[in-house]
Amino acid sequence: MAPSISDIIREAAALSVSPAPTKAARPHPLDNLSVEEINRACSIAKAKRPDERLWIKVCSLREPVKKELAPFLEAERRGETAPRPTREADVLFFVLSSRGLYEVVIDLDAGEETLCTKVDGHHAPLDREEINQARAALFKDPVYIKTVEDLKLPPGTTIVPQGWPFGSDHPDPAIRRVFFILYHRNPANDHPDSNHYAFPLPVVMFWDLWESKVTDVHWCYTGNEQDGMTLGTGPKEYPTQGCQGNDYEPSLNGVTVRTDLKPLHVTQPEGVSFKVTGQLIEWQKWRFRIGFNYREGPTLHDVCYDGRPVFYRLSLSEMHVPYADPRPPLHLKQVFDFGDIDEGGSFARGVAHPQYFDGAEVNPSGEGRVVKNVICCHEQDNGILWKHTNTPTGRAAVTRQRLLVLQTIITVGNYDYIFAWHFDQAGAIHLESRATGILSTGPINVGKKSPYGTVVSPGVLGTSHQHFINLRIDPCVDGHNNTITQDDVVPDPPSAENGHGIGFRVKSTPITVSGFADANPLANRSFKIVSATGLVPHPSQMRLAAPDAHITSRAPFTQHHIWVTSYRDGELFCAGQYTNQSRGTAGGIADWVARKDNVENTDLVLWHTFALTHIPRVEDFPVMPVEIHTISLKPNNFFTANPALDVPLSSQAFNQSSTVDGDSAATPCCAGNGL
Amino acid sequence: MAPSISDIIREAAALSVSPAPTKAARPHPLDNLSVEEINRACSIAKAKRPDERLWIKVCSLREPVKKELAPFLEAERRGETAPRPTREADVLFFVLSSRGLYEVVIDLDAGEETLCTKVDGHHAPLDREEINQARAALFKDPVYIKTVEDLKLPPGTTIVPQGWPFGSDHPDPAIRRVFFILYHRNPANDHPDSNHYAFPLPVVMFWDLWESKVTDVHWCYTGNEQDGMTLGTGPKEYPTQGCQGNDYEPSLNGVTVRTDLKPLHVTQPEGVSFKVTGQLIEWQKWRFRIGFNYREGPTLHDVCYDGRPVFYRLSLSEMHVPYADPRPPLHLKQVFDFGDIDEGGSFARGVAHPQYFDGAEVNPSGEGRVVKNVICCHEQDNGILWKHTNTPTGRAAVTRQRLLVLQTIITVGNYDYIFAWHFDQAGAIHLESRATGILSTGPINVGKKSPYGTVVSPGVLGTSHQHFINLRIDPCVDGHNNTITQDDVVPDPPSAENGHGIGFRVKSTPITVSGFADANPLANRSFKIVSATGLVPHPSQMRLAAPDAHITSRAPFTQHHIWVTSYRDGELFCAGQYTNQSRGTAGGIADWVARKDNVENTDLVLWHTFALTHIPRVEDFPVMPVEIHTISLKPNNFFTANPALDVPLSSQAFNQSSTVDGDSAATPCCAGNGL
Repeated sequence: MAPSISDIIREAAALSVSPAPTKAARPHPLDNLSVEEINRACSIAKAKRPDERLWIKVCSLREPVKKELAPFLEAERRGETAPRPTREADVLFFVLSSRGLYEVVIDLDAGEETLCTKVDGHHAPLDREEINQARAALFKDPVYIKTVEDLKLPPGTTIVPQGWPFGSDHPDPAIRRVFFILYHRNPANDHPDSNHYAFPLPVVMFWDLWESKVTDVHWCYTGNEQDGMTLGTGPKEYPTQGCQGNDYEPSLNGVTVRTDLKPLHVTQPEGVSFKVTGQLIEWQKWRFRIGFNYREGPTLHDVCYDGRPVFYRLSLSEMHVPYADPRPPLHLKQVFDFGDIDEGGSFARGVAHPQYFDGAEVNPSGEGRVVKNVICCHEQDNGILWKHTNTPTGRAAVTRQRLLVLQTIITVGNYDYIFAWHFDQAGAIHLESRATGILSTGPINVGKKSPYGTVVSPGVLGTSHQHFINLRIDPCVDGHNNTITQDDVVPDPPSAENGHGIGFRVKSTPITVSGFADANPLANRSFKIVSATGLVPHPSQMRLAAPDAHITSRAPFTQHHIWVTSYRDGELFCAGQYTNQSRGTAGGIADWVARKDNVENTDLVLWHTFALTHIPRVEDFPVMPVEIHTISLKPNNFFTANPALDVPLSSQAFNQSSTVDGDSAATPCCAGNGL
Repeated sequence: MAPSISDIIREAAALSVSPAPTKAARPHPLDNLSVEEINRACSIAKAKRPDERLWIKVCSLREPVKKELAPFLEAERRGETAPRPTREADVLFFVLSSRGLYEVVIDLDAGEETLCTKVDGHHAPLDREEINQARAALFKDPVYIKTVEDLKLPPGTTIVPQGWPFGSDHPDPAIRRVFFILYHRNPANDHPDSNHYAFPLPVVMFWDLWESKVTDVHWCYTGNEQDGMTLGTGPKEYPTQGCQGNDYEPSLNGVTVRTDLKPLHVTQPEGVSFKVTGQLIEWQKWRFRIGFNYREGPTLHDVCYDGRPVFYRLSLSEMHVPYADPRPPLHLKQVFDFGDIDEGGSFARGVAHPQYFDGAEVNPSGEGRVVKNVICCHEQDNGILWKHTNTPTGRAAVTRQRLLVLQTIITVGNYDYIFAWHFDQAGAIHLESRATGILSTGPINVGKKSPYGTVVSPGVLGTSHQHFINLRIDPCVDGHNNTITQDDVVPDPPSAENGHGIGFRVKSTPITVSGFADANPLANRSFKIVSATGLVPHPSQMRLAAPDAHITSRAPFTQHHIWVTSYRDGELFCAGQYTNQSRGTAGGIADWVARKDNVENTDLVLWHTFALTHIPRVEDFPVMPVEIHTISLKPNNFFTANPALDVPLSSQAFNQSSTVDGDSAATPCCAGNGL
């Protein structure tokens, strides 16, 4: 039998508690936990349980409650000092002897555990080591071995199992499990970087994480719609025989690389325009702190413009990806990419002068380690910012737009997501998301088609799916008491004033009680925070699953674009704290709006769910060109004029551009129309 | 009295016909008319009417009919020769003695006029000289002089009249006119580049263009909603006394310019990657011809990817901007920015190595002249193109995205529009539009508010409005017989197959008869051209004017996002050939769809109307930060794999980027989640 999960926990080197940092080195309350703090927090939790072995799942900064942090930040902005909030860590772990799951709070200042809660009715998120160990154990599982033998693949075929969080509708919620979808390497090269998604095997194995064994083997439906629920319509032996290599890696796919692309260099000869002090970033009147945690990735705090606060905290709250194919077992593909697992790192090439931020993570033994380059900070040019040609004189005034970009890339199995916060010079913040990577594929008999996806390679179904992303906006527009209005543009009815039938106006409706709302681009709907910051929700298709489907209850946040809740500390994750194998019972946004709290002129949170319904194209395989979405938070009568009025006019001396023919200056010319 | 319009037509230097070009120099059938060809075409038209004086409004390439041009282009692509279509010019002019408007066709090969049509029931577009002359005459008009005297502005105040096309609902359609809105310069500097839109005077003058005189003076409503239709609520003497200077020009506004922005240089040390041969552009497997005319600006022709045709012609068909304030006379602000007037030039700074294309225009005397730099062609970096990290090995493969950009800037009175066609390396074409420039403002009494706009400066109402832009797509996806489908994503009903309620699929409906359709982002609606090229319509709010409003009948294209018509030569302008003072009688898209032609598997045209409903922000004044919209035309199962698979992987050696700390290589790092 495979080793049980407890066998592979390494003993911590020592159970002695690490020392507290010296006063001089005290971190900012929003600084990420350092490796030393992670080690110290875990050692405190372990020291309290000297007879137990723990599997540490999470060790992360417990952000101070707002009533302590907000005054600290306000004093800091004024150059004053205020009481420093207690430095705390959240630690989540299994006690292996009992398989119990515990959340504890560690006071890092006092060096003690101050709260311990046993978590019942929920499953811990998966972690990398857990999956790696399960995969290693799978290869030795007799059920797995027999099943693979029966597939009669050519000798030497290398199987690549992909573990997925279990989109559970299992009657026994207590079983902690994943399921493995099996692929194999391209037999033509057997290279570890070959695209195994071009060789999907029609078999899925359920894996019990605690017992470390295969519990069920399921064959997949591989026919077309006419074959309906008929299993076994495809070949049982060497079912991927009709598949073909379809590699994205240039060294493997034999594709001749383009040679006609000339280099394009971006340089900043005088250096960058931003200033980084620890986790504080200052650029072009913006000032904010950046954080990073295992779940949300980058977080933005205390975002101010020209000394005026705008946002208390900005973050990505959750990402949920359900697939369209309802035929078991692949109906289980419904992952919470943030809650079930964790975010990852970042890198960039081709930008001028990036500055990288590191993160830190914990391993199951409670040891911290630096994760390099999780956030990339750099500047970009973004074309024209504002421009006007004054026709009477022909004088053209034009400025170019510079962006400050904070980019993180996460790889979630097959997919890669690039999230970037863009700060601009006109007071707006944009969240750009780019979806790339590889489609999650399933098997389909050669020659068949399925309504649930696109055949992207022989025998390969790129399954349709939705990506739901929730943006959490904790505003602080000149203060913590905010109100959200829903603003539609409506035609005026006929009247004496509107005799020509052309009048229209804004109909602004405040949201007074916690609840939800929907995008309506055809009404030009936007949402305003105290009439000063505007959000036009991305008008994407919401969940396609039935209202009474199991999956719908797991992710109520996918039903509406906009949610408004009253602020409470710790309410960060719209699908609940625990999403892995959730069964619709996790506390989340549906519960919070059900409080029917007042949200007018008070501390509130605005949540925006946007989605990409992805019907794969053949062009999305074997690797997908980026699909780009952008959400903007723009000032709206917050300033008294265009805040970018003081951006210097664009000049050739500054930009150093030249024409193809080598002329140093591009002559401004605006023929205009002379009106 | 002011001089009549015929007084200021200069005599053409000679009426002799210019010679035809030599055979060696024969232009491509899609080349713009040269200055010589313009001179020749006009001289032919004038020579035919030796006793008349003409006011030439338009002299532009008459593109060959498709049945002649398409075989020519196809042969050209195959490296063969085919019969060359006749080289023709469209010339539009007034005969001044009769004020008659004529369209003639000039055969430039034969040197003769082949068609002459008298245009009745329509008004010619305005031109720059016409407006300039009208403005000059206005200053001498006794009604104008008396009205301005009565305003009792401080001595030395410089009035800036802005002429507008007349959004006519006048009972006499025969009167050719404009209306002038009056502003004045900032009295504090009296500078010709001061922002006169911060000083709107509450008076509008109607101007008869033929009689060259003021016919009516209208006072504007300047109260709030409670004041309703009560005229004269504001001060009659020095009505702009409460206004304040609000200049965008840095040398005038006293704003301290930011000094903390460091230069960012873009260079291409080995030159650009694109190749230009006349008006033919080749870049990264794309090959197309670019044209430029007075009305549409840039046009794209014979757009091919890797030798396969995709589009026969892409263009902007019309832009229409109606304003929200229904109170006369400002209800007349409803301009057709392309049809009423004409497009203009372009320039760019801060891009690496632009190449400029020139255009040519004609003056009223029939003389051609080069307009420099109307299109700017350059490359841009656009971040990551595709990327995947293979978790088992940690290998990250990443490419950066290069764009080819063709940018044109037009200034239409107060507004400036930046239109850019972006070609990418993954087979997609994007139209980016940026709206900037200055709000069209109206007067409002200090202290009042209006539902029809935003007070953006004291006494200044930035009036709400809509911008409607129509994109004309003449597809040729591997051939001229195309079909459009409307693709929605719909949930599966409950069934044995959909036992978990999660199934969804694409419902694809072909459009068989010419007609219209609407965007529906909440159904993930897209439109496909022969299932091979996808367009997701921009889901913008359509016309807010009442269905029976005069303005609605002038611009039916603003009622729906998508229109499909059968192809007919010459049907280029969705609001009709003649929009100036149109009264809903112009032939346009509503007439063409009413033919109820078959549009299945035939030569068809797809038209997309998108809009920006602009409720001004204070931040949009005195000059507006760009508001960006992008429309994409993407391959959809046109290729057999990601067409950008052959883009070379991003490397530090190629990009030459370095970190802030000076490290030469940005280490790829993807912590990932290990699944």
